[in-house]
Amino acid sequence: MAQQKQLSPSMFIGVEGPEIISFGSGQPDLPPPKQVYEILPDYTSFKYGLIQGQVNLRQALARQYPASSPENFVITNGASEALDLSLRTISDVGGKKVLLGRPYYYSYPHMVRFAGMEPVYTDLVEGRIDFDDLDRKIRGCRAVIINSPSNPTGRVEDVKTLKKIEKLCADLNIYILSDEVYKDLMYVRENYLLSGPHVITINSFSKTFAMCGFRVGYLWSLDQDFVDKVIAMKTHTSMNTNILGQEMAFEATKVPKRFVQDQLKIWEQRRDMIYEGLVGLGLELWKPEGAFYVLPKIPEPKRFVLDMFKKHKVITYIGDWFGAPKRVRFSYALDSERIELGLKRVRKYIDSR
Amino acid sequence: MAQQKQLSPSMFIGVEGPEIISFGSGQPDLPPPKQVYEILPDYTSFKYGLIQGQVNLRQALARQYPASSPENFVITNGASEALDLSLRTISDVGGKKVLLGRPYYYSYPHMVRFAGMEPVYTDLVEGRIDFDDLDRKIRGCRAVIINSPSNPTGRVEDVKTLKKIEKLCADLNIYILSDEVYKDLMYVRENYLLSGPHVITINSFSKTFAMCGFRVGYLWSLDQDFVDKVIAMKTHTSMNTNILGQEMAFEATKVPKRFVQDQLKIWEQRRDMIYEGLVGLGLELWKPEGAFYVLPKIPEPKRFVLDMFKKHKVITYIGDWFGAPKRVRFSYALDSERIELGLKRVRKYIDSR
Repeated sequence: MAQQKQLSPSMFIGVEGPEIISFGSGQPDLPPPKQVYEILPDYTSFKYGLIQGQVNLRQALARQYPASSPENFVITNGASEALDLSLRTISDVGGKKVLLGRPYYYSYPHMVRFAGMEPVYTDLVEGRIDFDDLDRKIRGCRAVIINSPSNPTGRVEDVKTLKKIEKLCADLNIYILSDEVYKDLMYVRENYLLSGPHVITINSFSKTFAMCGFRVGYLWSLDQDFVDKVIAMKTHTSMNTNILGQEMAFEATKVPKRFVQDQLKIWEQRRDMIYEGLVGLGLELWKPEGAFYVLPKIPEPKRFVLDMFKKHKVITYIGDWFGAPKRVRFSYALDSERIELGLKRVRKYIDSR
Repeated sequence: MAQQKQLSPSMFIGVEGPEIISFGSGQPDLPPPKQVYEILPDYTSFKYGLIQGQVNLRQALARQYPASSPENFVITNGASEALDLSLRTISDVGGKKVLLGRPYYYSYPHMVRFAGMEPVYTDLVEGRIDFDDLDRKIRGCRAVIINSPSNPTGRVEDVKTLKKIEKLCADLNIYILSDEVYKDLMYVRENYLLSGPHVITINSFSKTFAMCGFRVGYLWSLDQDFVDKVIAMKTHTSMNTNILGQEMAFEATKVPKRFVQDQLKIWEQRRDMIYEGLVGLGLELWKPEGAFYVLPKIPEPKRFVLDMFKKHKVITYIGDWFGAPKRVRFSYALDSERIELGLKRVRKYIDSR
């Protein structure tokens, strides 16, 4: 049997099969709109693209963001690179601390450190930001990362809280990196787009259009000086984002809104199923308001994750990776039959304890 | 008229047209092998790929490198990301100086600084490494970047020199980052693959297969600990490289060698044409032995680059960007008729002075 110290996300990579139920990976199982593939048969380009990203794609995005021009965008290798470049750019202009809500997306602390800075944490209350605690912890930070809807909590921040954060950061001259990759997967309200003098919005085509593997993300900011610095850095660190991926993303921008609305209905049904299922098993958890994760409290979470995998062929992620040591993350990006089957196996585990 | 201080590569980006002769951009004008497009019509994948890169592609690469397994490779967003991740990984394990030959590829000093380190220079003699100078300058460095064939000099290092560098770096425990993206575009000998305990080889599909826009590069190393650290970093900073680009690159690995050999003949003809043309104009330059650049000495190089662009519609790059202040870089990645036309315009400029 695996040692507890070996528990890491890599142990689940490539683990697949009809008998495995994976609540692990955070990616849509539903396919992208068929339109993104329709350009492939006639595609012939091969040369370098613009570092900032292709003009057609940035024009389409500019129509989705208020008071924007294509100049305000940089197309990146997924939201990951957008965030990495943003943090490296911020680090370059000084300041060595970045505030994160905890639980956090597991890459955030690593990215902050790779950019030469240190993460500072504000503990979420009921999965949401406690503004007073944020207000205290943010002093001396160069930036704060906001992630609403959140991976791993599934929670959506109150608009009131977001507005207070906007004002505070504008007053203190602190960057807001708003990771909104789940903005189209929200069950409780429309997305609230943060704004302010130093707001950097990060998004991607991965979750909304199920295009994870193509790695097309972007950042948007009205802080043009910041955008230009990101482009200058990307010129040397990775050059243009894959030109064909960008054309596929451009096709996605033309897909009728119904595509996203129809998928959202499916996500909401799954959300209800897993939330009610886990509540029915007596577990304590926050009701997800967006994204596709639940983060229940589980006694002896390491044992749970290992036993569920080894004995019950169910993949879940230990809360430790997300700064939530008493919890376990379930992604519900799988069809309802498999969610049900997975829940039965969790019941079996619980009943056997 | 543009101010001299405005002279930057970005002024030429997107400048195209039948009347423009561009000796600027360093990318093949000849198209990729047709096989890379043949998989597109039936392509349907969309999920995350392995961070390290797709298994079929790494298996194909492992057959090209001695004593290798697929584990020794990481597929990256072009050679740029391979180099960026390598430098960041090296920086993380300590050491703050990186040795570069000068003239250098213009991104190197930026990349070294973005990774939190400082570049140190050894001046090339006749476009090649002066081992004795390198031996002095490398003391206290954490790594050296070798780029043979070189952009911008077009020179290929002597195998004897490379072997002495291998031994020196092994003795001093210094990383060699060997940027071999032009290894298949060499006119004087076969490529010599550097080896040693801490050699990281960087390559890509951009130059050999004219796939610049698709951004598929890779690094190879038998230092498995280093490879694992790069993967751990890429997990957070950009995740997998575009899955479709990787499949296209895999198709390129199956293309018969004749594709590259036939292209090499064309490059060599162009090399002869531009080298003899510029010598015929009385310019002093090194004979290119690989890649597709010449770097002649030009009096008043800023004036040359600006006048050639504004008055003669010819794009060239100022040597300053490459650490060669008395020179100008010409890329000869354009067809022979346009090379000839461009040379006539250079003659007109020289005659008018």
